[in-house]
Amino acid sequence: MSETIIPYKIYLDESEMPTKWYNMRADMKNKPAPLLNPATLEPMTVEELSGVFCHELAKQEVDDTTPYIEIPEEIRKFYKMYRPSPLVRAYCLEEKLQTPAKIYYKFEGNNTSGSHKLNSAIAQAYYAKKQGLKGVTTETGAGQWGTALSMACAYFDLDCKVYMVKVSYEQKPFRREVMRTYGASVTPSPSDTTEVGKKILKEHPGTTGSLGCAISEAVEAAVGTEGYRYVLGSVLNQVLLHQSVIGLETKAALDKYNIVPDIIIGCAGGGSNLGGLISPFMGEKLKGEKNYRIIAVEPASCPSFTRGKFAYDFCDTGKVCPLAKMYTLGSGFIPSANHAGGLRYHGMSSTLSQLYDDGLMEAVSVEQTAVFEAATQFARVEGILPAPESSHAIRVAIDEALKCKETGEEKTIVFGLTGTGYFDMVAYQKYNDGEMSDYIPTDEDLKPGFDSLPNVNR
Amino acid sequence: MSETIIPYKIYLDESEMPTKWYNMRADMKNKPAPLLNPATLEPMTVEELSGVFCHELAKQEVDDTTPYIEIPEEIRKFYKMYRPSPLVRAYCLEEKLQTPAKIYYKFEGNNTSGSHKLNSAIAQAYYAKKQGLKGVTTETGAGQWGTALSMACAYFDLDCKVYMVKVSYEQKPFRREVMRTYGASVTPSPSDTTEVGKKILKEHPGTTGSLGCAISEAVEAAVGTEGYRYVLGSVLNQVLLHQSVIGLETKAALDKYNIVPDIIIGCAGGGSNLGGLISPFMGEKLKGEKNYRIIAVEPASCPSFTRGKFAYDFCDTGKVCPLAKMYTLGSGFIPSANHAGGLRYHGMSSTLSQLYDDGLMEAVSVEQTAVFEAATQFARVEGILPAPESSHAIRVAIDEALKCKETGEEKTIVFGLTGTGYFDMVAYQKYNDGEMSDYIPTDEDLKPGFDSLPNVNR
Repeated sequence: MSETIIPYKIYLDESEMPTKWYNMRADMKNKPAPLLNPATLEPMTVEELSGVFCHELAKQEVDDTTPYIEIPEEIRKFYKMYRPSPLVRAYCLEEKLQTPAKIYYKFEGNNTSGSHKLNSAIAQAYYAKKQGLKGVTTETGAGQWGTALSMACAYFDLDCKVYMVKVSYEQKPFRREVMRTYGASVTPSPSDTTEVGKKILKEHPGTTGSLGCAISEAVEAAVGTEGYRYVLGSVLNQVLLHQSVIGLETKAALDKYNIVPDIIIGCAGGGSNLGGLISPFMGEKLKGEKNYRIIAVEPASCPSFTRGKFAYDFCDTGKVCPLAKMYTLGSGFIPSANHAGGLRYHGMSSTLSQLYDDGLMEAVSVEQTAVFEAATQFARVEGILPAPESSHAIRVAIDEALKCKETGEEKTIVFGLTGTGYFDMVAYQKYNDGEMSDYIPTDEDLKPGFDSLPNVNR
Repeated sequence: MSETIIPYKIYLDESEMPTKWYNMRADMKNKPAPLLNPATLEPMTVEELSGVFCHELAKQEVDDTTPYIEIPEEIRKFYKMYRPSPLVRAYCLEEKLQTPAKIYYKFEGNNTSGSHKLNSAIAQAYYAKKQGLKGVTTETGAGQWGTALSMACAYFDLDCKVYMVKVSYEQKPFRREVMRTYGASVTPSPSDTTEVGKKILKEHPGTTGSLGCAISEAVEAAVGTEGYRYVLGSVLNQVLLHQSVIGLETKAALDKYNIVPDIIIGCAGGGSNLGGLISPFMGEKLKGEKNYRIIAVEPASCPSFTRGKFAYDFCDTGKVCPLAKMYTLGSGFIPSANHAGGLRYHGMSSTLSQLYDDGLMEAVSVEQTAVFEAATQFARVEGILPAPESSHAIRVAIDEALKCKETGEEKTIVFGLTGTGYFDMVAYQKYNDGEMSDYIPTDEDLKPGFDSLPNVNR
């Protein structure tokens, strides 16, 4: 029997693109724990959540029973501008590694925001517009989410206020200009434009910021302004729902060629990419139809899964947000200035945390220099300069492919290549100059974070 | 009769990708004038050209009779990593402009080099490798060609020395790091590493450089080093040949949906993108099979077509290269620090110059602020942040679409979107801050350039 030739890039036709998002929670036996009202410690209702989020998004946030949710026509139209994204067969990387493994990556970087973040940004902007809002506020780490949201807001003519983690703001000056080009305002966080920002600056004068701080500021800015709501690019159930488009396209592309992956790998900061990529595969696993190895990769400097605790915690440093049950290092943990700004978050999606706790997925942590080594190797043979975040997944994909080389196994590996590294050249320069440092927090370093965990008995 | 639905993006299948480049010169009645030996003023032979270029490329340079040239298998393999590039229907731009025109763009920016330059870089690196060379030298303006060549050399394990026009080197510090990540060495030009560089620095101490200077340095560095040859990203016939892959894919994509364009628009610096994009269309025009309006767009600050002379001239400032007959502002013309670094070249492809002189294409020049206005408008609705170079074509495509709005004509406009602007944020920042200047040289400003033209009677 002759083998089907797999092209370098598998594209779906427009007619094959998903028309519904898949809500993994509907098929989970152990549902992710609900968000809690920080005052009452009771589960947040849709009405309560609607004070912070758009109403429709609040509904999506709590919906753990509807398996498929229609993608509105206007969002599908926008998706068609930059989707479907290609599923790429990494022939050149395979050859370079001399591995019998078959490596595929779903490349989400072929849009100006440079990452998968646009998938949820356009959805959130759409619902904000539909609700008649004037604008939205948000935080951004590496800048990818902020750029994506700026693009989405420009498309729907919404005002966009971005709080950008200070270390990224400084390392990525051009990111700010992309957001400005799309009409957004950008403030480095922590800032003195909010009460919570002022408080954090007072307590930690030299801080380079964190996603946790920036979230607090953005939420305060939204709740205090008429016609504004807060939007978030990761962690939330609604975000994983929108990002399921990644996994659904991936699965459809694989199905077209009867490919069944053995291992699925994604980087994990708050979980938006990983949760989206694995959705339909995890769905099959939850229903007992298939079995896949699913691996979350996180930086050794911010190891929420591998060294965190599964507990209720604040999502933000300022403690203004609802509490979420998740793998967390504690909202008091301020991660080191790792170059993968998008992975510097103390917590993790509640949905993924539950799946991890139930043994349905694995997690590994990797060090920065090894990540950039993989990034450079990948760039040179596959021709794409990857984002530091995405390169965490590349590292582990290469490691798994090298294991196959040893054992001779022809495993099929799929990983998520979430974005490009065009705005990460400061980091690449450090690596090129041999000046990159690897920081792994000691148990002592982790203690303040764990000490900051709230005492919630649920 | 129901109208066929045109998707947002038309992708060819791998099997539909071109297997041969198209050599427009074969169908030209008036052939482009040959390169001249600067010492004898006689046409350069293949043997003479082989001292500067790889042998196979020297042959391609003089071949004006073979219409189709096979794309070697190794190059086609590399093409499959990032090609076919999408032909995009600009539905959102059309809607924004409220024009009856149908606008398409061929997007060449979806690869890490960020532009179409990779199409020729990989071909030139391939032939250098095949000839057993150690490495190649080149110049780069905006940095796109240098990045593309670095990627191509990394793929074939060739050494790569890049002379980068000083103004771009300073405006785009991160470009250097991308090239270094791909293993290239990068020197700002003019530099004191070459004799010609030293001479230019002495004569023009404050110069921000030009492609003409950088070419001289790169040629000197190649000719003086065993196992090295010089490669060039534009102007040359061989480059237009390789870039014909853009036009061939565009035409194949249009043909799939029975679309016949009325107007084809491309930006023109040295002519690599424009020449490639129009190739098959110009072929039909040359054979009298079809008629298209073909428009070259250049910056008002460097108006080779619209204000230059059609004459033999030096290709480089240092006068070390062969002479080419072309529309030129004179090798002594040093263009202002326009942000479209890739369009700051005093001359123009000989092939395109001949076609323009024969009245087979038009040319217009546009000012910088109007270009960035078009770029921003495009970015906000089409979701792609365009390179300043590409935005010249966008400007004229929008202008033509607005004319259609006035007349009610449903013209089909195709333009080349050559690349992305991720490394041009300094320019965007100037535009965002309202600090962009529009410089149009006076006749007086052009005089030194014209005075520098050699006295060649051919």
